[in-house]
Amino acid sequence: MSILIVGSLAFDDIETPFGRSDDTLGGSSTYIALSSSYFCDEINLVGVVGSDFGKDHFRLLHESGIDTKGIQVKDTGKTFRWSGRYHYDMNTRDTLDTQLNVFADFDPHIPSQYRDSRYICLGNIDPELQIKVLDQIPNPDLVILDTMNFWIEGKPEALKKVLERVDVFIINDSEARLLSGDPNLVKSARIIRNLGPKTLIIKKGEHGALLFTDSGIFAAPAFPLESIYDPTGAGDTFAGGFLGHLARSDEQNDAELRKAVLYGSAMASFCVEKFGTEKLANLELLEIEDRYQSFLDLSRIEE
Amino acid sequence: MSILIVGSLAFDDIETPFGRSDDTLGGSSTYIALSSSYFCDEINLVGVVGSDFGKDHFRLLHESGIDTKGIQVKDTGKTFRWSGRYHYDMNTRDTLDTQLNVFADFDPHIPSQYRDSRYICLGNIDPELQIKVLDQIPNPDLVILDTMNFWIEGKPEALKKVLERVDVFIINDSEARLLSGDPNLVKSARIIRNLGPKTLIIKKGEHGALLFTDSGIFAAPAFPLESIYDPTGAGDTFAGGFLGHLARSDEQNDAELRKAVLYGSAMASFCVEKFGTEKLANLELLEIEDRYQSFLDLSRIEE
Repeated sequence: MSILIVGSLAFDDIETPFGRSDDTLGGSSTYIALSSSYFCDEINLVGVVGSDFGKDHFRLLHESGIDTKGIQVKDTGKTFRWSGRYHYDMNTRDTLDTQLNVFADFDPHIPSQYRDSRYICLGNIDPELQIKVLDQIPNPDLVILDTMNFWIEGKPEALKKVLERVDVFIINDSEARLLSGDPNLVKSARIIRNLGPKTLIIKKGEHGALLFTDSGIFAAPAFPLESIYDPTGAGDTFAGGFLGHLARSDEQNDAELRKAVLYGSAMASFCVEKFGTEKLANLELLEIEDRYQSFLDLSRIEE
Repeated sequence: MSILIVGSLAFDDIETPFGRSDDTLGGSSTYIALSSSYFCDEINLVGVVGSDFGKDHFRLLHESGIDTKGIQVKDTGKTFRWSGRYHYDMNTRDTLDTQLNVFADFDPHIPSQYRDSRYICLGNIDPELQIKVLDQIPNPDLVILDTMNFWIEGKPEALKKVLERVDVFIINDSEARLLSGDPNLVKSARIIRNLGPKTLIIKKGEHGALLFTDSGIFAAPAFPLESIYDPTGAGDTFAGGFLGHLARSDEQNDAELRKAVLYGSAMASFCVEKFGTEKLANLELLEIEDRYQSFLDLSRIEE
């Protein structure tokens, strides 16, 4: 099963109450690709990097079975950089610095050999670029989209255009309230699903996630972790695990969607245990299945 | 199965974005008793009221099968009054006025015919009074305790004394962090369970509840409601449903504790649908089982 992921690649400087990590490989597509790579062996990545994106970074992606032919290398510039500091409670963060660099004029070109990819995941980028990507994919099976406040407020019309072509929309609770204009998540979900996406996932951070489909609502718990070292990339990692399980099962019914949400949650729970992609890039399949089982136990009721 | 409930009876003036309700029957023991009355037919209530607590209020309790012989009536004073206003998001509220009235010198006397009650629920009152109650009950099967920030900060020593004698402690997330001094709920739970209660429930409002036992952690979702009219009493209603199911099943193993958390959640989800006890006092058993089933569906995974 082939997956196409389009999004940012970046270097992050991250500061949390537990320490700091500089020049950490990050970016939405990096987390999505690494996370989905445990479920699926054909991962095609499209993004842009600068001259500072070295062989070792490409090697890390290749070792996870990720195809990087779609990554444009702009030798004249530097890779997108983000720097942020998390507060004591880990739920809020301040962006200290953002340098778009080569990402500023990212023009996603989908290589011909990627155009028959069946599962498309559009990471958090300009909705106009997300439309450009979809225009290059004649006939995808499933389109998953992520976005953020910045685009909801800055490019609402383009976002609504792309949402009409999306199957699964992944968003967090504050973004859902912002996009729908309604503080109630159930009402927000109805409003947002009417914009196009049949399937909506609202992430609630440490409180889990809600899945809205025609079949109803599924509430996934968050894994009660004793220590969270770095929440960076958790949302993208969730998307990658979700996408990965769906592609692996190649089913899109309610039962598989629910499992996919739990796999996404399981992957995200690993992501936050170390800085950046450190934990995510070095998992065993058995660990993932164990964590998935822990998620099942977390809400198991003997009927 | 006999249940003894000790706590406040009150009249509330409640203001929410959806309207206001004055002189509404409230108080922790009222909500706990009404909620548990659907599960158990021997509910003994101990509290204090003033001359303004009329026949119709007693009738409402009697019609729910609640024994009120333990309610002291102080003709010289008025019933405890609370007045509060909820914010737009319904998660925060301002207390506008509190008049303790006869509740100020409440001295809980447990009638002799109540002293063999097997399930004891101590509502949110002064921990010194909670100790006084336990001293009058020779040999209870299960003691459930609720408290609040006010007592955690004001009477930590008395609270710790009573916790040593408690089986199930029900608290919300901010109170758990305050009592434990740790922002992480998993660590908080370990610290608090070391104070005595084998079973700890941490309520997270619209995000559900966590149950901590020797067998592990259970994460109960909150019911995704479209409209919440009045959160007043939801926590006590949760305790009542939890208590009620445990008393009904007369089992305290992990499986029944998990179900009890869902029944508590189901009852709380009804409570918030109308002002005060209006909905809670007028439920059908079938509605409760339907809501419980909805909670099961909410986190069901086909394995």
